[in-house]
Amino acid sequence: MEKKDSSNVGALSVKVDRYELGAAPKTGEDAVSREEPLEIRVRGQSVAVTMRTPGHDRELAAGFLLTEGLIQKPEQIIEIAPCLESDAPENTLNVFLSAGVEIDFKSLTRHVFASSSCGLCGKASIEAVHQHFPPIKSGAAVSAEILAQMPEQMRASQKAFAQTGGLHAAAIFDFTGRLLVLREDVGRHNAVDKVLGSGLLEGQLPFDAHVLLVSGRASFEIMQKALAGGIPIVCAISAPSSLAIEFARESGQTLAGFLRGPRMNVYSRPERILLAPVQS
Amino acid sequence: MEKKDSSNVGALSVKVDRYELGAAPKTGEDAVSREEPLEIRVRGQSVAVTMRTPGHDRELAAGFLLTEGLIQKPEQIIEIAPCLESDAPENTLNVFLSAGVEIDFKSLTRHVFASSSCGLCGKASIEAVHQHFPPIKSGAAVSAEILAQMPEQMRASQKAFAQTGGLHAAAIFDFTGRLLVLREDVGRHNAVDKVLGSGLLEGQLPFDAHVLLVSGRASFEIMQKALAGGIPIVCAISAPSSLAIEFARESGQTLAGFLRGPRMNVYSRPERILLAPVQS
Repeated sequence: MEKKDSSNVGALSVKVDRYELGAAPKTGEDAVSREEPLEIRVRGQSVAVTMRTPGHDRELAAGFLLTEGLIQKPEQIIEIAPCLESDAPENTLNVFLSAGVEIDFKSLTRHVFASSSCGLCGKASIEAVHQHFPPIKSGAAVSAEILAQMPEQMRASQKAFAQTGGLHAAAIFDFTGRLLVLREDVGRHNAVDKVLGSGLLEGQLPFDAHVLLVSGRASFEIMQKALAGGIPIVCAISAPSSLAIEFARESGQTLAGFLRGPRMNVYSRPERILLAPVQS
Repeated sequence: MEKKDSSNVGALSVKVDRYELGAAPKTGEDAVSREEPLEIRVRGQSVAVTMRTPGHDRELAAGFLLTEGLIQKPEQIIEIAPCLESDAPENTLNVFLSAGVEIDFKSLTRHVFASSSCGLCGKASIEAVHQHFPPIKSGAAVSAEILAQMPEQMRASQKAFAQTGGLHAAAIFDFTGRLLVLREDVGRHNAVDKVLGSGLLEGQLPFDAHVLLVSGRASFEIMQKALAGGIPIVCAISAPSSLAIEFARESGQTLAGFLRGPRMNVYSRPERILLAPVQS
């Protein structure tokens, strides 16, 4: 595999044969999204291996531990450092946590908040998350006009996507429409973990007067991560799932889907989205 | 949450407020993709919880165990049955395997083929998979013209997507372009596990004269699952990642991306895609 890195860390150039019916294939170069494994270790013990786009890996590790309910504050992290005895130190991060942080390695490696009974259902999954992250009660609100401008602003900032067409994005905006942080990744959950990890490491959490915008669909896991960051409003360019909607309604989160141009579908807590008075 | 099921098990109707700038919101109904947790147990022990679209769950469990390298043949499965003592038996499946099947629960719950050293990188991940699933050496080939017709055929069969706009699909075609099986799911990996599980339970594996078509992007994990099913050709409607390409090249798999209308990008083993003689 060619390792000719482009200037953008998220993209890599590879050889491609471009086929078109009725013509001879043309050999050329194509920029593709980078995907590499990252192992996250806590106190030397492996807790996760995720396939991610390299870059902002400390944020990814911090965001993962935040959204798994393990840490809440930046001061709980002593250091996040590459595993130096490794052949590929950039792909293994050791997270050193302060002594007071308790870790349940068993539940952590399952990557799911388990319900206590055998009765596994959407409702039980939501209740399990609420034991770690309380529902949102904020009276915050944002103008629909400002929301409508966010997708274009996000797309304009997606440098690696523009090259590869193959990356998910997550972005945090404030209520004036200012883009605070945007991250791209082959994994949509990783992109969200990265923006939340950025907020954690920069001491900006909770994002309680902010909007999370995701480039794709909204699932249960996206809503859970948003709740971990204290975010009252989540918007998706594409469709939400049934459980994302149920989660949002039970968690006091505003959820909008199909945010495209002047239109959006609001599935939960529409009172946080303000429309300008209708012209008569 | 409304539980008014539409005729399609993959979709659910929910209340929505449709916003458009300059107008009053309109309240209505929207069909959204169903997402519910499924716990997979083997010999009574929990090995995975995945968020999936209900339906074809036995296939999902069988496909998961196949692609994790645990089972290879339908006769290794004695029974796949709901957990009857549960409040939501449909969301917990017990898989009973024949006595000869050995299970390494520790590696299974990590959902990744671990490399032995600290040197975690794409190459090591690929080698770890090859210990379970050998590279493909098939001389099979398919016509580009037939490939070009597959996306439209898949889309026409995606009943739940047509309603919700929010489901991934995976489909198996033979080399004449006949669609054998199509499954939809909120999780793209689940959709692939379901088509492979279908092949396993129906005794159709390996899919060695077949094409796997996925509605979204091609990642490392998609290629790994295709290899577990013995599939020589993988096509994606959208972009492949760098590691999907590297995996395909090392595993003898043909990988085409951006399969749209008469065009496609071929990243690995183009010799399996035959063009009609160019008209002169």
